Formats: sequence, C-alpha cells, structure tokens
Amino acid sequence: MDIDKLLDQYKNKEISKKQVKERIALLQLEELEGQARIDTMREDRIGLPEAILGDGKEPEVFIEIMKKMADKKGRSIGTRVTKKQKQLLKQKKGKYELEWYEKARIAVLKTRKHQKPKEGKIGVICAGTADIQVAEEARVTAELLGCEAHKAYDVGVAGIHRLLPVLKKYSEKNIQALIVAAGRDGSLPPVVAGITDIPVIGLPVSTGYGAGGNGEAALLSMLQSCSILTVVNIDAGFTAGAMAAKITKT
Amino acid sequence: MDIDKLLDQYKNKEISKKQVKERIALLQLEELEGQARIDTMREDRIGLPEAILGDGKEPEVFIEIMKKMADKKGRSIGTRVTKKQKQLLKQKKGKYELEWYEKARIAVLKTRKHQKPKEGKIGVICAGTADIQVAEEARVTAELLGCEAHKAYDVGVAGIHRLLPVLKKYSEKNIQALIVAAGRDGSLPPVVAGITDIPVIGLPVSTGYGAGGNGEAALLSMLQSCSILTVVNIDAGFTAGAMAAKITKT
Amino acid sequence: MDIDKLLDQYKNKEISKKQVKERIALLQLEELEGQARIDTMREDRIGLPEAILGDGKEPEVFIEIMKKMADKKGRSIGTRVTKKQKQLLKQKKGKYELEWYEKARIAVLKTRKHQKPKEGKIGVICAGTADIQVAEEARVTAELLGCEAHKAYDVGVAGIHRLLPVLKKYSEKNIQALIVAAGRDGSLPPVVAGITDIPVIGLPVSTGYGAGGNGEAALLSMLQSCSILTVVNIDAGFTAGAMAAKITKT
Amino acid sequence: MDIDKLLDQYKNKEISKKQVKERIALLQLEELEGQARIDTMREDRIGLPEAILGDGKEPEVFIEIMKKMADKKGRSIGTRVTKKQKQLLKQKKGKYELEWYEKARIAVLKTRKHQKPKEGKIGVICAGTADIQVAEEARVTAELLGCEAHKAYDVGVAGIHRLLPVLKKYSEKNIQALIVAAGRDGSLPPVVAGITDIPVIGLPVSTGYGAGGNGEAALLSMLQSCSILTVVNIDAGFTAGAMAAKITKT
Amino acid sequence: MDIDKLLDQYKNKEISKKQVKERIALLQLEELEGQARIDTMREDRIGLPEAILGDGKEPEVFIEIMKKMADKKGRSIGTRVTKKQKQLLKQKKGKYELEWYEKARIAVLKTRKHQKPKEGKIGVICAGTADIQVAEEARVTAELLGCEAHKAYDVGVAGIHRLLPVLKKYSEKNIQALIVAAGRDGSLPPVVAGITDIPVIGLPVSTGYGAGGNGEAALLSMLQSCSILTVVNIDAGFTAGAMAAKITKT
Amino acid sequence: MDIDKLLDQYKNKEISKKQVKERIALLQLEELEGQARIDTMREDRIGLPEAILGDGKEPEVFIEIMKKMADKKGRSIGTRVTKKQKQLLKQKKGKYELEWYEKARIAVLKTRKHQKPKEGKIGVICAGTADIQVAEEARVTAELLGCEAHKAYDVGVAGIHRLLPVLKKYSEKNIQALIVAAGRDGSLPPVVAGITDIPVIGLPVSTGYGAGGNGEAALLSMLQSCSILTVVNIDAGFTAGAMAAKITKT
Amino acid sequence: MDIDKLLDQYKNKEISKKQVKERIALLQLEELEGQARIDTMREDRIGLPEAILGDGKEPEVFIEIMKKMADKKGRSIGTRVTKKQKQLLKQKKGKYELEWYEKARIAVLKTRKHQKPKEGKIGVICAGTADIQVAEEARVTAELLGCEAHKAYDVGVAGIHRLLPVLKKYSEKNIQALIVAAGRDGSLPPVVAGITDIPVIGLPVSTGYGAGGNGEAALLSMLQSCSILTVVNIDAGFTAGAMAAKITKT
Amino acid sequence: MDIDKLLDQYKNKEISKKQVKERIALLQLEELEGQARIDTMREDRIGLPEAILGDGKEPEVFIEIMKKMADKKGRSIGTRVTKKQKQLLKQKKGKYELEWYEKARIAVLKTRKHQKPKEGKIGVICAGTADIQVAEEARVTAELLGCEAHKAYDVGVAGIHRLLPVLKKYSEKNIQALIVAAGRDGSLPPVVAGITDIPVIGLPVSTGYGAGGNGEAALLSMLQSCSILTVVNIDAGFTAGAMAAKITKT
Repeated sequence: MDIDKLLDQYKNKEISKKQVKERIALLQLEELEGQARIDTMREDRIGLPEAILGDGKEPEVFIEIMKKMADKKGRSIGTRVTKKQKQLLKQKKGKYELEWYEKARIAVLKTRKHQKPKEGKIGVICAGTADIQVAEEARVTAELLGCEAHKAYDVGVAGIHRLLPVLKKYSEKNIQALIVAAGRDGSLPPVVAGITDIPVIGLPVSTGYGAGGNGEAALLSMLQSCSILTVVNIDAGFTAGAMAAKITKT
Repeated sequence: MDIDKLLDQYKNKEISKKQVKERIALLQLEELEGQARIDTMREDRIGLPEAILGDGKEPEVFIEIMKKMADKKGRSIGTRVTKKQKQLLKQKKGKYELEWYEKARIAVLKTRKHQKPKEGKIGVICAGTADIQVAEEARVTAELLGCEAHKAYDVGVAGIHRLLPVLKKYSEKNIQALIVAAGRDGSLPPVVAGITDIPVIGLPVSTGYGAGGNGEAALLSMLQSCSILTVVNIDAGFTAGAMAAKITKT
Repeated sequence: MDIDKLLDQYKNKEISKKQVKERIALLQLEELEGQARIDTMREDRIGLPEAILGDGKEPEVFIEIMKKMADKKGRSIGTRVTKKQKQLLKQKKGKYELEWYEKARIAVLKTRKHQKPKEGKIGVICAGTADIQVAEEARVTAELLGCEAHKAYDVGVAGIHRLLPVLKKYSEKNIQALIVAAGRDGSLPPVVAGITDIPVIGLPVSTGYGAGGNGEAALLSMLQSCSILTVVNIDAGFTAGAMAAKITKT
Repeated sequence: MDIDKLLDQYKNKEISKKQVKERIALLQLEELEGQARIDTMREDRIGLPEAILGDGKEPEVFIEIMKKMADKKGRSIGTRVTKKQKQLLKQKKGKYELEWYEKARIAVLKTRKHQKPKEGKIGVICAGTADIQVAEEARVTAELLGCEAHKAYDVGVAGIHRLLPVLKKYSEKNIQALIVAAGRDGSLPPVVAGITDIPVIGLPVSTGYGAGGNGEAALLSMLQSCSILTVVNIDAGFTAGAMAAKITKT
Repeated sequence: MDIDKLLDQYKNKEISKKQVKERIALLQLEELEGQARIDTMREDRIGLPEAILGDGKEPEVFIEIMKKMADKKGRSIGTRVTKKQKQLLKQKKGKYELEWYEKARIAVLKTRKHQKPKEGKIGVICAGTADIQVAEEARVTAELLGCEAHKAYDVGVAGIHRLLPVLKKYSEKNIQALIVAAGRDGSLPPVVAGITDIPVIGLPVSTGYGAGGNGEAALLSMLQSCSILTVVNIDAGFTAGAMAAKITKT
Repeated sequence: MDIDKLLDQYKNKEISKKQVKERIALLQLEELEGQARIDTMREDRIGLPEAILGDGKEPEVFIEIMKKMADKKGRSIGTRVTKKQKQLLKQKKGKYELEWYEKARIAVLKTRKHQKPKEGKIGVICAGTADIQVAEEARVTAELLGCEAHKAYDVGVAGIHRLLPVLKKYSEKNIQALIVAAGRDGSLPPVVAGITDIPVIGLPVSTGYGAGGNGEAALLSMLQSCSILTVVNIDAGFTAGAMAAKITKT
Repeated sequence: MDIDKLLDQYKNKEISKKQVKERIALLQLEELEGQARIDTMREDRIGLPEAILGDGKEPEVFIEIMKKMADKKGRSIGTRVTKKQKQLLKQKKGKYELEWYEKARIAVLKTRKHQKPKEGKIGVICAGTADIQVAEEARVTAELLGCEAHKAYDVGVAGIHRLLPVLKKYSEKNIQALIVAAGRDGSLPPVVAGITDIPVIGLPVSTGYGAGGNGEAALLSMLQSCSILTVVNIDAGFTAGAMAAKITKT
Repeated sequence: MDIDKLLDQYKNKEISKKQVKERIALLQLEELEGQARIDTMREDRIGLPEAILGDGKEPEVFIEIMKKMADKKGRSIGTRVTKKQKQLLKQKKGKYELEWYEKARIAVLKTRKHQKPKEGKIGVICAGTADIQVAEEARVTAELLGCEAHKAYDVGVAGIHRLLPVLKKYSEKNIQALIVAAGRDGSLPPVVAGITDIPVIGLPVSTGYGAGGNGEAALLSMLQSCSILTVVNIDAGFTAGAMAAKITKT
C-alpha cells in the first residue's frame, strides 16, 4: 500500500513533511475507492440491483444497458418493458438467459443461475383489473429479490367483505410486509392498515381521470391516512417490491 | 297581492287597459318583480334561504345582514358564526328570537314561528372529533329545512366494524339521504357508498396537514370514488345539509 | 349450519370450550360471507352495477370483462367505449344481446331481458355541442337504471333566456333530479340551481384550454357555487347519472 | 430646457458642433432624460400615476412614499390602506390635502387641486357584500382618473332578474366600460358579458373557501368564459379601474 | 298582442281572475322570448358571433355547425381550424362563400356579403415566430369584426429598441386598443403597457417548456404586472381580438 | 367474558341452543362486538394506539380525549402538544401519570405501568436543528412502542462525510429500520438509502420557503428517489416512528 | 450622420430651432438605431446568438429560420432538433456548412469559419443515461461559445464515491463553472455544491414519473438547496451552457 | 495540527509505522476528520459559511447557534433576523463583535477581525421599495464574502429608460456578476439579461398577490426567460449573493 512507501520515504528523508501531508490529503479526497469496493460487495450480497426503466428508452439503448448491467452484476432487471423492447430482447438476447414476466412487464437478463432460497414472505393486495400491472411489478420484484410473494387481486373497498379473509390468511402465513396497490380514491391501503398488524406499503396507481386523476388522489389519500402506512411514488411498483423485500431481511 | 288589485281596478274601470298593460310590462321587463315574487314564494315554500357566512365578517355588519334577511324572510341563518358574533348577537338581538346551535356554530334569527313538520329524514356520519363541527353544520341545516336529521359521529375507516350497525339502523329508519363527512384521507364516504343504497353526499373537511392537507386529499379522494357519490366543497356543511333536504323533498 | 354442529359437539363434550371459542372467532373474521351474499342481492335489486370504463383498456380485455360481468349480473355496462372496442364487441358479442348508445359511447351486454318500469324522472341540461357526449353518458346511465331521462342540450349562460322555459317544463313534469353538465367556465349549474327547486348535480366537462382548462375551472366554479348543488368529478357522466337515479328512488 | 440652451450656445459659437453632438449623444444613450421627461408628461396628461399599495408596508414608510410621489406628481394614490396607515396619514398629512375613501380603502394626498372634468363613464357591478371593498377600489380609481363611475352592488347570479334592469340603465347612460367583480364561483362576469355590448372587465375577488377559494375559481372561471371579457388579477381593483378609465379615453 | 285579448276576455267575463293571473305568470316565465329577440338583434348589430372552435371536433361535425351558424347569422367564424377541417370545408362548402386565413387558422363561411366599413383601429404586437399564430387569430378576429387591424411581429423584450418605433407609429395612427401576445416569460405586455397610453390586452401564448411552460408563466406574469393591462386566457386569440374590437366601439 | 358465560349457560341448560345461536349472530352481524374485541386485543398486544394530535385542539378538549383514551387503553399518546396544552395537562393530570417529552412535544398519560422490554432497534437521522422536533416525534414514538431508538442529528448532505460513521455504527448495532428526516431539498434520505441496507423511511419536514417550501420539495424529492425508500407525509413523525416499530416486529 | 447635417442646416438658418428640436426628439424616440447597432455588435463580439428551438416547429419553417439567422450572424444554433429536421437540414443545407451534434441534438449552420480560441473551462456532470441528452445540450452549447467543456456522465448520488475523483480532477483543471444535470430527485447538484468551490448551475431534467415527475421535484429540490447554487428551467440545457460560458468570461 | 504531531512522533520513533497508518486510516475511513478539516480550510479560504436563518427560530436558540458558529469559524452570519432577535443579540452579544445591517436584516457575530481585501465586483439591481430588503440581503452577503457590491434600486420595467445608464455604469466598472431582484411579474431580469454581457442571477421576491403572488409569477417568468440567466429560490438573497461572490472568484 502506498502509505507504507510514503512513510518510508519520509523517514528516509526522501520527502519532506509538507510532501507527506499533501500526499495524505490527496488520499483523503481521491482514494475513497476502498469505500467504492465495499459498495459493490453490498450490492452483490443483497441482490438489490437498480431497475432499468424500459418505458421511454429506445429498444436498442435499453437492451445495451440491460446487457452491460447483467455483465457487471450477473443479472439485470428491466421494468415497464414495452412490447417492442420485449420482442427485440427475445431476438437479441445472445448468450444471456431471459426471464419474462408478462403482467408485470419485467424482463430479467442473467449470465448465471440465481439460486436464492425464499427468505422472506410478502403479500400484495389490489382492488381490481386496473391496478394489476403495477401490483405485479411489485410482486415480481420482491420475488426476484428472494421473497415468497403472495397476491390477492380481487379485493376492493366497495366490497370490504372480500378483504377480511385475505388478511386472515396472510396473518396465518406470517407475511412480513404488505403492499397495497390502489388507484382512483386510494381508500384500500388506509382500510387495510387499520385492520392488520403487518407493515403496509401504500402503492398509488395512475388510474382515475379528472381532478386528482393519474394517481394523485390516491397518493394524497395514502399520505393523509390515519392508519400507519408508508408510501411510494405513483406506479413505483419496483420500489414497493424492493422495500418489502428489504423489510423481510431486517 | 298587487296583481289582484290591479285586475280589480281594471274591472271596476278605475284604470284603463293601457294602464294595466303598462303595469304588467313593468313587472315583466323592467323590474321583473313578478319573477322576484315567484322566487320569494319558492323560498318560503321550501324554506331554503341563503346562509349568511359569519366567519370573516365584522360582527356589526354580520348582525345587520342577519336582521335584514330575517325581516325579509321571517328567518335568517348564519353559519360559521364566531364567538364575538355570537355574543354581540345575544346582546343586540332586539325583537328577534335567537336560536343558537353551539357545535354547528349556526345562529338563527326569527321574527315568527317556523312550525314545520318533519318532512324528510337524513343521516349524517363522520369519523371523529375533528369532523364534528362541519358535520353538525350540515345536520342542523337539514333540520332547519324541515328534516329529521340523525347522526352517528363515532364511525371511522380504521374501525370499519362500527360502521355496519349504523348503516343497518339508517336503512331501517328509511333515511333518504346520507351526508358523510371526512377529513384527511377521505376514505369513509367511498366505503359507505359501496355498502348502502341511500344516496351519499361526500363532505370533505379541512383537517389534515402536509401534502393534501386542509381537506384537499379528502375532496380528491371523494371525486375519484368508484362508488356512487356526489361531493360538496371542503367544509361546505350548509350546502351538504341543504342538498340532503332538497333530495328528501323530490 | 356449522354453528349447530359446533354447539352439539360442545354439549356432547366432543370439543372443549376453548375450541368452541376459537371456532367462533374464525367465523367472525372469515365467514362474513353472509354479508357478501346480502351485497350481491342488493346489486341485483337496485340494478346498479359498476360501470366498466372502456377507454384505456385493450379491446380484448374490455370485452372479456364485459362478458364476465354480464354472466354474473345478467347485464354489464361499458362506458367511454372506443370505436375499436365497439367494433370488436359487435363482432364477438356471441350469445349476448348488445345495446349501443352512440352519443353516450355506452355499450350494454345482456344475457336476459331487463324489463324495468320507468320509476323515476330525471333531467339533463347542457350548454352546447362540446358537452353532449358526457351529458348523454349521464342520461343513458339514468335510463339504464330505470329512469325516464329527459334532455335539453341547447341551453347556455350566454343565452340565459333559453334556460327558463326548460326549467318550467321540467318543473311541470315533476323531474326529481337535474344533472347540469358544463365545461369551460362552468357557470350553468350555479345559475340553474339558483332558479329551480329540483336538486342539481353539477357535472364538469373536460372542455376549455389554457388556465383552468380540461374542466378544472368548471369543477372549482361548481364547488364554489353560492346556490345549492353537489358535484361529481370531471367527465364523470356515469356517476352523475347513477346518483340521479338513486335520488329518484329514495 | 437644456436643448434650447445648447442650440443657442452652438449658434453663438460658444460650443463646437462636436460638443453639441456629444451632448446630444449623452441625452440619448446615457441619460435618456428626454424620454424620461416625455414619460412624466404622459403621466401628468392622463393622470395615471402608479398606485402605492398600503397593505404590508410599515405606516411610516408608506406615508413617506405617498408624500414623495405627491411632491413629484401633485397627487399620490394609496390603495388597500390599513387602519393604522389611515390614522397616521391623518395625523401627519402636513401641508398636503388628504382625501379618504372609506369603503375603497383608498387615500389620496394632493399638493394642488385636480379639477378634472368627468370625461368617461364606467360602471361597476358586483354580487354582494363580500365583493364591495374591491369593487369600490375599482370604482374610486376610475373616478380619480376622471371618470363618472356608476355602481350596482346588489346583483347576483342566484337572482339573475336583478341584473337586467341594471344593464338596461347602463346601456341608456352610454357606459363605456363595465367592471364586474365576483368572488367564489365567478359566474357573474360571463353572464353579464353574454348580455351586454359594453366591454366587460372581470375582477375576481378573493372570497370563497376550500378548493378554488381565495378567488382562484373566480379567476379561472372568467378566463374560461365563452362570452367576451378580459380579466385582471384577483383583488386587483386598481388595475380594473385604471383600465376602464383608459378605455373611455381611446 | 296576447295581453290585450286576455284583458278583453277578462273584462267580458269570459275568463276568471284566476285564469288571467295564471296566464300572466306563464308569460313571465315562459315568454321571455322578447328578450331573446333583442339578443338576436344585438348580435346582428355588432357582428359578434360566437367563434366555433375547430380543434378537437370531428371535421364533419365542425362543418355542420359552421353551416348551421352561417344560416342563422349570415356568417360563421371557425377558429383553430385543423388542416383536415380546412380541406373538407373547401370540398363541401356548397352554397356558402369561404374565406380562409392561413396563419390565423380561421375559416369564415358566409351566405351574404358583410360590407362593413372599417370602424375602429387596433394593433397587435408579438415577439417572434412562436407567437404569430395566436397573434394572427386575434388580429383577423378584430378585422372580421370591422376593425382596421395593424400588426408588428418582430418585437421582443430582449431587443427592447425595436419596440419604441412601433409604439410611436401606433400612437400616430390613433390605435385605440393594443393586443400584446407573448409566450414563455410574458415580459412584453408589462413593458408595453408601461410605455404607451393605449389600453393593452395581454394575450399569453402556450409556448415555453418546463416549470411555467405552456403559457402559465406568461399568464401569471401578466396578471402580476405593475403596468395597467387586462388579460385573456392562454391562446385565447379570438377573445382578445373581439374585446379589442368592442373597445373601439365604446 | 361474555362468550364464556354464554357457553356455560348453554352447557348448564340455562339457555337453549337457539338462544346461543341468536346471541352469536348478534355478535357477528349486528354488533360485531367480537371483532371490536379482537381489535382491542390487537392494540394491547402491539401497543399501537392512535396518536391524539394536540395542535389545533382546545386544551380542555384535548385533555378530555387524552384521559378517555388512557382509561380505555391504559395509556394515551398526544403529539404536537402545544405549550398551553402541556401546562393544563400538568395542572389537571389528576390520577394519571404524565410523561412529557420536551423536544418531541409528546405527552403520555398512563393509568398503569407499561413495562415493555426493548424489542426492536431503530435509528433516526436528520440534518440539523430545523428538523429535530419532527425527528424526535418519530424517535419517541418508536420508543413508546417498545423500540430502542437511536439518533444522529448532526448529519447533512452538505457535509456528507459526517454521514458515513453514523451508518457504520448503525450497521454494527443491527438497527432494523432507519427514519431519515429532511426539510428543504430532502436530499438526505436518497443519499442514505443509496449507501445502507437498512430499510429507510423518508420523513419530509416542513422547512424551506419559496417554491417547494414547507416540505413540498422534500416530499417530492423522496418520492422520486432512485434509491429504495418509502415515505410518510410532511411532518408525520408519529407515522414514521410507528411504522419503524412495526417493521422491527415482523 | 444626420445630426451633422441637421446642425449645419440650423447654423445656416435653413431650419428653425424648433425644427432641430423636433428632429432630435424623433431620433430619441424613433430611431434609437445607435442602440440597435451597439446591440448587434455585442452579439457578434460575445458570440451569444439566440438558440432556435427545433422541437415543435415544422421542419421547413425551422430550416428557414436557421438560414435567416446564419445569414445575419454568420452562424445559427438549433437546439432539440428532431430527426425529421435533421434529415431535411442535411438535404437542404445549400451553401451553409452544417455541424451536427448527435447526442446534444444540436445543429449549427455556418456561412463562415468560427475560429474561436478556447477561452474558458467548464465542466458538466450528470448521474446517468437518462440525463445525457440535456447534459450534452449544455456542454456543446458552452463549446460553441468558445469554452473547453469537460464531462463526467457516470456520477450519481446513490454512488457518491464516484463523485469525489471527478471533482478533484475538475479542481485541478481550474474549471470555472460546473453544470450539474439531474432528473428525478435532483439530489446531485446540492451534494456537488456542498463539496466544491466552483460555481454550480443546477440543470433539472424532465425524467421521473408520478408526483414531482417531469423534472418538477428536481427543480424544487435544487431551489431549496442549502448549498449555494443557481438553477435554470427544466431541460434548459442551452441556457445552462450559455450561462456557464458567460461566467468564464467575467 | 494533529498530522504534524503524528509525523514528528513517527520521525522521533515515538510511535511505530503501524501506529501512524492506523491513525491515518482512522482519519480517512472512520472519522473522516481529515476531509472535515479540508472542508473547514475551504470555508476559511473562500469565507463562505452557511447562513443561519433567523426567521422562525426562537431568539435564544438563534443566538446560541450564532455564537457556536462564530466560535468555530471566527464569524457567523445570520439572515432574516427578526427585531426580537436583533435586540436580544445586542443585549447578549458578550465577547463577540456584532455588525448589524438594517435593511438587509443581516447580523454578523465575530470573534476576530475579518480584514478581507475587496476581490470581486458585483452589482445588484431592483425595481423599487418592495424588493429592497431581499436585494440588500444579497448585496451585503456578497460584501461579507469579500466583494465590492454596487446597487441600483430605482430601476423598473415600467420605466425602462432608468435602466440603461445603470448598465452602462456597471459595464464600465467591470462588474463581474449581476443580481437582479424582482417581485410581481419578474420582468426586470429577462430585460436586463437581454441587454448586458454580465452574467445575471435572477432573484424572485415574494411580493404580489392573487394568482402567481408571493413571488411565484416572478420565479416562473425568470425560468422561462429567453435571455440567458440563472435563478435562485424566491427571497433567497443569501444564495444569490454567495453565488455572485463565487462567480467573481473563478
């Protein structure tokens, strides 16, 4: 290591005290690379790569980034993958193994097996057809991060009676974190968090129209909830799934 | 009534046909007093005077308007009456009879008895202490407009089980319109409207803080509701109560 | 019923008191299915199914949901049905009977006749061509829910004189609820509610451009109205129509 | 005037041509004093000084600015003058003549008489007590700028019949510009502009509460009006009055 | 007139007093057609028809409305006419005469000559290429309403020196109203209104991107102007032009 | 407990099977008292009572609610307690034991000892003096719910070097959930979540002024974070603390 | 120059003093051409032409403006040039020399060489692929304005360790201004400005979705920054680059 | 200094090489005190301490922080200091030297002389009395950071002619950065940046009322400016002043 040599030179009077000090100052600013290494190890250890947002990227660019990340981490996760991106990915997957999750619009490129035992248990709840895509993005994300991820997609505030058996089942299964997706009025997460002990993550979905549409009413409603819950951004299924997975590992 | 007298005079030849016509033209085109009178008759019949908003008015000005309206209509209704306005009203009520509704902050000045049989039945529901003032403004308004107005103020989404017995009771009583007041996340009205057949008016209350506070999340949430409900402005207890009363009279 | 058997077993000492209690607790949480049944009966009774929003759904998915709902309820109502959805629906309606309302963009799929006597009477008013689609969505909805639904689509604030004869006619016909649709400045509903006794539902329409465009000014203007009216979300024709129908049944 | 003297000196050969040119260049590019003077003359001619906004200024500062402006222009106009400012102004008016307009909260300090014949005619309309202060600010401003300024403060959309006789009277008086002040839903200006030929300036007032309160709904509603009208900012009575005065002078 | 006959019948005892009163009440509510007639005459007299907004309407529907209005008023004005609408209009203009204003995107359908002497004079100013379309919509509108309408489209705040000669020229021509169109920062109208005596109408244009884009910053900036000006909605060229024309006729 | 007694009576043949069933049906459908009881048991078990928001309540009302809740649950937690409320609480605490947390503005009223072993471990981080009150509300809440709650209040993005040692220490202590409070630009939570494995709850604080002030920028910034974190409402210290405690118990 | 002639004529008594004064007044108000000329010289000197925004303009119009500007200034800069515009520009560049910057979407048309020595040094930093286009627009702009413009596009808050070496390098190179582009949470510019002495310009990018998406959170976050930085509008790469270039020339 | 002593001890063989290395590692990785020191040195060198925002802090707390910072840095700068804070600061300044800037509301506490030669030159421009406080905050800040800071506070868009001589003077003085403060419509900074070569920092001020009030219109207008300028948050005088100072030192 440099510092050894530096001190030797200083002792041998090859360099002055001022030079030692300058050199150490450089190390302080520059060689925080040690910290960088720790960072990389952390990512490998918990398997929490950044998601690569497909929507809005040119298919070629998207695939290039997916492959680069897969090379670096052994696996890359693409979210909100468009039809065109999916097709091109299938055509040009080359040496990589491709996993495709249709409803969640998630693509996974892998260079090697990811044999992860199911460590944690999470549950995803949503009210109806409009919220399923985002809910699935959350659920699949949690699964990819090593969770057993349950779902119940036919529950709604308008039919509150369908909710209780689900929560009972989740409670019996020792679910550790609950993602509740809801668009429009966003009433479901506050109701769920008012009934269950399991930590609830509210996931607003960009449904609805008019005032408060595109998930805005749902987001505000969840932020204002009297019941205890935390919230992610509108349509942020990946964040919700990854946070749920993190909670199961604490 | 003028028109009677006019026609009598015409018949008795005290005035000419031209004079009758001129007088009627005046009524129609210039003064439109006829329409005004019809308007007045309508207000007397359904007892739906404008509310006089107390909050923000100087006490003296407020009382002067209250008295003028009471003179014209036999009764005036002041809403969001401040403490100072209430005190001055008590001191200076003069020949008028004063009714005071503490929680609703409503003051009524009357010149004559308003003996109205209870014609319709409405119910008011809210979740807790923070919403009671506005809920009471709605309930008392409906009562002043001739309704039997029930209340249930200890119901909340977090304790959904307290809601069902209330709705069952209201259904048995043949309540014709339901006002559901809610602040913060505004989840209660969508939940109620998803369960009951009674028409629901959502009444957002200006509680809550941070993003979506002051009733904004509640309003948007109600506008986005999948269940069928209509909405009034934030804290518009008088409007909600008056609309509920109107519904019972259809 | 289980509870009988349970109590027999307890009496016969086949199970302990603790076991009885546990079993009852399960019934409380789990078997609220009785309530669910009541709920289903309610929907059949008042004929108020959820609307299936066409706009934004893939045609195949939309039709699949329409059919599933029609199987369950005997009838399904699709709103904001796009041209593509309409065409596919016509091609693939199979065993179902299809009703199509062109201006309202509403499709109805039926498995059996819905012979409903016209029970209530509602009226729909709007100012001009831009608001007709949403107004028709409201009117047809009310009709589908068993109302006689009148319309007057040539009334505007700029020509206030066209409004009075309409209100007079509606008053004579004993209309029980009035839907007033308006875009841009949304002035019509406050004006109407200031003249008539019939309960008014304001229906903001997403016309207009610039500041307050897309129905925002209309919505806020209606919420701020001094006259008594309640409001639904921008373009929420189905909600307005269904609420009007509910009011006629109180 | 400098330029006179300059040319005299040049003619008298006291200064060279180059010196004249330099001096003129200075006038143009550096000082642009000529333009400044023209500017001053313009203000004197049309009597349109800047208003000095009282509200928010420390009384001493406010009075100091009022006096400085009065010295420069012969007259200064203070708007939204607070009670404290008014009192101090009365105590310390010194050599200046003070005019005070109670309802409009306008103070005028003068060093000399402003004998201006009434040149134009404008009218101000508002719906009720809540809008009078701002309406008066507009009306008094127009008066101070030399207009005959009429008012009608008991007109509202809810009682549309009170509006027609006012407009008829204004039309007969050849009113050249109309200011229509309205808070809450702001429906009055579109209605007025839909009936009359007189140019209408919409003046939103910061009344109302909840969504769209503080004049926001009124402003947006006026901007969205189908009838022809222009708009000033919320509570901008001075601007409305000054614009109306400008219109009468075209 | 009916009223004569009515009174005759009453005098002749052919009808009762009650019948007379009922008949008069009908006249009051129903037959405000007299007022309607006045309204129509007004529109013919000042030539201020409603504009028919092309953008967003199906070409067939648009043309149908254009023709109906032309039949009723002798002329109809379509604004923001799309290319498709323009083409169809040319193909299917039938018996009507078509005027087309390319830059303003305005189409006029006429059944008869509109020989209107140029009565008033207005000027339109804008900063650059991005604002010309909306500025032209305003200018052509004023022209169609009988004004001599000048333009200066190369003036901007960044080059303030180009502005003064324009204002000087307009002043010499006795321009009576000035429309100043500006997008992005909207600085031009306040600057213009600070220099000239002519009444200024600020016309915000939906240019700009990011925060305050689409004309929002321009609108707010004009509403906040210290100089005296009134404002129309973003892109509301027709309203600005029509208001300017109204001002010239006061 | 009722159900015990009921079953005893049944066994002892004091009541019939039919009576038992009726009684149980009542519990389920009408009163749902069973569920209520379960609910109560849940609250006792996890010690998660509702917080009583002090700010905005009249001191007398606040204290009354605090006592009622303490009677029911053995302990009540008041948040954002004002100085007046604190003083009155001290004077009138009566039989209850009062705990007061100065910086967190939290008051606890107790009827009996709450001897809870420290079960979980959470950490709270904030940037500086402006955020401490809200951070303390979160920390004390977690402590009251049985957590060992650490704090580090001198960490900021501007001095990123102060952050690393804190995270290192928290990692060594096996902290299970991290609350990161930040006002103004809200940069701290994304930075922290980008470094550590511990689940991060972002807590926006209502500091800052101008655009995005009052916590709005902080909230949006956290919602947009690329790092994995969930968010609570602005200033919602209680929610953050309670959620962190919930996570430690999964 | 005119003024010479004018003074000659005056001296020779060919024109009166009044005529001289009038003529000078005209020069002051009308021509101000001197100022205009200075303005043109300024633009040539600092080489800071207006950018011509491509996006949203018809290709033909865009190219016409580009050529006109190139004729006037010797060079024109088109930003956010679309693919169609680029292609047409290549086909129809005629006598002009075309420079094309792919990532920055910038096109330069030139009539003559622009041999500008690299005068200043600026640096551009961004976090990842999503921000590169806007970052490049800024960088290329600065280069076109005569700067040596460095870039570092792989730096992000989530990996703060990659940032320090970059800043160290920039510091050693004596970079005079730093543009930091960031979308979503916009955390990078505050972090950078908290570490370095170089003036930082925050450049928000319209990435992100949901609440605060499209660059809004990034903009607000930068405005709220505790570290010292200034901000340009969302996606305003040209402004950022030009400002950085201006700073290097102070 | 520690590192000196450390190296001395090492040279004198009082400590081993391993001990030196451990000690240095501690500095780098654990404590990062080295970086903190560098950071401190940076702050001393450019004299850019954090400002301590007075407004909103309890006077005692404010003074305590001021003193702590002064102890650490030799000087502390308090901004937006309230009257109460100023008074208490005067009473309790103890051993510190207090500088007070009345208009800027800035307080400086010093333990030792700050004899800084005036290194850079900046200018501050604003339109009138309402903006002076914030403009002064910027100017005094730049002065405290070692700049010669000029001011011109009587310049406004409405009187554009007062602006040119100021810019000419600033240009002659080689001002390196210009802060232009403006409230309401914020037109001044775009106008200034369109004329001068000096880099302009727009400083929006929270004046104005109604729509776009409190500095919002000013901020958006500056962000949308076609001229080249960067912007700080509303009322962020300190940031503007510090950024200007930074620019002069590049």
